[in-house]
Amino acid sequence: MENELHQISDHSVCAAQIDLRRVRTNPDFWYPVAWSRELGREKAIDVRFAGRHIVVVRPRSGVPYALDGLCAHRQVLLAKGEAHGDLLSCIAHGLKYNRDGQCVSPNVSAEAQCLRLRTWACREKDGLIFVFMGDQSLADKTPFPDFPRVRDRSYRTRRFGQVVNCHYSFMHENLMDMNHQVLHSRLVGKMKPRFLGMDHGDDFVEARYTFARTGGKQPLSEALIYGQRRRDGRDFAYRDVMTIRTQYPYQSLRIETQGIEDPVMELWISYLPQDREELTNRVFGLLSIKRLKVPFLLDIAWPIVVAFTERVFSEDREIVELEQAAWKDLGGDHNQEVFPVIKQLRDLLRRCGQMPKSAEEADP
Amino acid sequence: MENELHQISDHSVCAAQIDLRRVRTNPDFWYPVAWSRELGREKAIDVRFAGRHIVVVRPRSGVPYALDGLCAHRQVLLAKGEAHGDLLSCIAHGLKYNRDGQCVSPNVSAEAQCLRLRTWACREKDGLIFVFMGDQSLADKTPFPDFPRVRDRSYRTRRFGQVVNCHYSFMHENLMDMNHQVLHSRLVGKMKPRFLGMDHGDDFVEARYTFARTGGKQPLSEALIYGQRRRDGRDFAYRDVMTIRTQYPYQSLRIETQGIEDPVMELWISYLPQDREELTNRVFGLLSIKRLKVPFLLDIAWPIVVAFTERVFSEDREIVELEQAAWKDLGGDHNQEVFPVIKQLRDLLRRCGQMPKSAEEADP
Amino acid sequence: MENELHQISDHSVCAAQIDLRRVRTNPDFWYPVAWSRELGREKAIDVRFAGRHIVVVRPRSGVPYALDGLCAHRQVLLAKGEAHGDLLSCIAHGLKYNRDGQCVSPNVSAEAQCLRLRTWACREKDGLIFVFMGDQSLADKTPFPDFPRVRDRSYRTRRFGQVVNCHYSFMHENLMDMNHQVLHSRLVGKMKPRFLGMDHGDDFVEARYTFARTGGKQPLSEALIYGQRRRDGRDFAYRDVMTIRTQYPYQSLRIETQGIEDPVMELWISYLPQDREELTNRVFGLLSIKRLKVPFLLDIAWPIVVAFTERVFSEDREIVELEQAAWKDLGGDHNQEVFPVIKQLRDLLRRCGQMPKSAEEADP
Repeated sequence: MENELHQISDHSVCAAQIDLRRVRTNPDFWYPVAWSRELGREKAIDVRFAGRHIVVVRPRSGVPYALDGLCAHRQVLLAKGEAHGDLLSCIAHGLKYNRDGQCVSPNVSAEAQCLRLRTWACREKDGLIFVFMGDQSLADKTPFPDFPRVRDRSYRTRRFGQVVNCHYSFMHENLMDMNHQVLHSRLVGKMKPRFLGMDHGDDFVEARYTFARTGGKQPLSEALIYGQRRRDGRDFAYRDVMTIRTQYPYQSLRIETQGIEDPVMELWISYLPQDREELTNRVFGLLSIKRLKVPFLLDIAWPIVVAFTERVFSEDREIVELEQAAWKDLGGDHNQEVFPVIKQLRDLLRRCGQMPKSAEEADP
Repeated sequence: MENELHQISDHSVCAAQIDLRRVRTNPDFWYPVAWSRELGREKAIDVRFAGRHIVVVRPRSGVPYALDGLCAHRQVLLAKGEAHGDLLSCIAHGLKYNRDGQCVSPNVSAEAQCLRLRTWACREKDGLIFVFMGDQSLADKTPFPDFPRVRDRSYRTRRFGQVVNCHYSFMHENLMDMNHQVLHSRLVGKMKPRFLGMDHGDDFVEARYTFARTGGKQPLSEALIYGQRRRDGRDFAYRDVMTIRTQYPYQSLRIETQGIEDPVMELWISYLPQDREELTNRVFGLLSIKRLKVPFLLDIAWPIVVAFTERVFSEDREIVELEQAAWKDLGGDHNQEVFPVIKQLRDLLRRCGQMPKSAEEADP
Repeated sequence: MENELHQISDHSVCAAQIDLRRVRTNPDFWYPVAWSRELGREKAIDVRFAGRHIVVVRPRSGVPYALDGLCAHRQVLLAKGEAHGDLLSCIAHGLKYNRDGQCVSPNVSAEAQCLRLRTWACREKDGLIFVFMGDQSLADKTPFPDFPRVRDRSYRTRRFGQVVNCHYSFMHENLMDMNHQVLHSRLVGKMKPRFLGMDHGDDFVEARYTFARTGGKQPLSEALIYGQRRRDGRDFAYRDVMTIRTQYPYQSLRIETQGIEDPVMELWISYLPQDREELTNRVFGLLSIKRLKVPFLLDIAWPIVVAFTERVFSEDREIVELEQAAWKDLGGDHNQEVFPVIKQLRDLLRRCGQMPKSAEEADP
């Protein structure tokens, strides 16, 4: 009995000691890997999941499929090859693979028929291509993410994303910690966040904030997203509620305003680890903004919205990349977190992610 | 007896397990390290053999000589210095060395007379400078490569070569595996290689192919090399024989055509490992093309031949560098070779090369 | 007794075996880290000492202070933040620190009050900002470097310095070994150094040279520094004495000429290790030149002096960076020193520096 307790305590110490920036993305989820528009008919593209090359092919007819991205023969990058009909051929020796990953080029050598590539579950939805990189038997049972605002005509959606040179955990923390609004003060004026509370469960953490403007003028771009604020006392401050949620592995942000049922803004975001160490991630973001009473006003103002969100994103990028650079420099995580929500979030990301594997275990 | 057998079997397993991309170039051969035209009178150049700096000096009179490329005093690169008469002086402190590697600068300090550089056997032939980097007592007994077409006026020879970012073994495999012709299909049209057979011995592998055009037009540049092909049935296909040979450590390719005694084309090629890990090599190639009946036609068309060979070389370079990149990415060789000739070639390169040494053994 | 002797001998073998290029800068000295002109009022700059980020802040009033350069919260580079009044605030979450390194932002979170940064002793003198990176209790007792020529109006001082990609020990050796004058022969003509002698003690080595011109004309730039030399026999040669001294960790060079009391030139120089491995250093140099009889002549000619010293510096930089590159390439120090002064200097730098620590011991 005593031993058992001791083991539990040992385990929790151990879990706490694992460097969050080494925790790997849990592959048993559907991850966006490309925008649909990136992949034409009879084309192939290379994407990476935690260092692994995956080739996604859109055949002449039918839905895209995903295979291991390096030729089984001599590991030449398959996305350099060509898709003809339903087959993908390697640029080097012309070996052809079908959507089951089977090499179908007996003309080169009889032995080539033994060559096979791993296949990965692949789906396309709302302009995004997803793959399932974990246990393939779980793919169909695993909930597929939904973001209905993208199809809702009373919203306009901006698709954005870039490669950011940091571990995905920095992205989650940055979005959820609204104390970093000071960072954007040049863009949005002085906004004082008030933390309203949080919820958390096995696979999520949710934080709610409201804001008061303490200085500066509300910029036009922000007014387009939040609606214009009149400067009439209490009503001005704390009218909006911002809800930020990490529902592992995705993240969302919603702004609701008093007296309006639908959110004025909704953001859905996913992070794709690029390199083997997962110190670089590619962002796929869907930012949906509610149309105003005069709907086309939002369309006219769209370039301002785009520029505004780009600048906020670029300020955030600078910070998370500085954090990542310091981690590399110091050889590990030296964060001293002071904000309870972020502590919860860190526990969640450790709990739901995969433990780091040593270099020896790496299966390529 | 049983034990002995067991050991043999153990050894072969072990040999097979050695990653071909870690096998080092056998230094007990003569390797080209520079073109003669690169080294003027009273000049010095730096070349590298598997990470080791060698300085090659052409003195005021007499043949070039080769010394260790870093000054014995403080390891400053000697090729930065100057050659005066028969001596080479270091840029930093002016220490002078003669062709025996002896420091002859007692004026700096009496102790400087104890400084010596290793000397390396060095020869010049047909526009190439060679060094012998192995056991120096073997240099004179070691066969010196010959390529008589270079001196044959019925041929014209193109000297080419570049640094390619891959282990030399990828170069050997790429040249010998004619199934990679699919790679050049945009340049040469659709050519279907037919494997005619192979020979192999202790220190060589030779493969013979013939080709049939299955689509596309024969480009002018190719016609200049192979001769023009008439489109009259069987005669069109399979008239040429291409013989590719790795005679360790060199490689050659010869094209012979029915009814003509001399080859229409002959290629001799050597790979010089640049860095210590030998993951980069510098190519020295001699491509000799038989002059046509009207000999100056080849001279007129020479720019086309040059452009054609450059493009073929550049397509090959892309593939071998992708293969090398995948090896680095995956942390080792994952080739699943399907072609028997290449399997033989891989065995040859393993057998004739030097086993990798661990970092500790490295002698600089 | 025998055992004791054995241990001593073991120890000396061991000390001699330590690679000089791995010996770390002794932090128990005052090091210049920036020029005063680099740091305006209410500004902060990032400097590095052996890989450690230090932020130096010049508050609205009072002297500069130095703190650890990464925010205690999430290790964001503090020099990206802003100095307001006496406080420094982090760009990411706006945490504010005072000159004692105490976080004074309870508004973000009560826990933030527990955040502290290490402070480092910091002084400013003669246009240079110094920090003391060792045991802070020793800072005030440690002699502060002085270079009175900077304040002497009969001299003009050039402040120079750049980042040089080599271990600081190469810098010391290069300046002290006047046999490297051959390197500058294109700039200064052929100068033959004559070694006059040396002194050494626990914490210094001093070498004295004189020079004779053996060829080439004295350039104007050199005449401005040394004074013009008449070509009248013995008097021309050996009139000047150059004294080079490493007084750990600083270095100086003084040129005195017969019959003149004050030196015609004095150089004071310090090397700041940049990266953790100390294979890059930032130079802070003060070059003071005695004004001529017509004082403003030196001012008129100053651009020539600047260009001349820049070119000498750039030639020296090439050599020390080649030496460092060879060290990396060979994986260690292979110097065979032949000059007794430099052997003394190497012992001094080993003795006064800090032994390399293994990666495990590293405290970030």
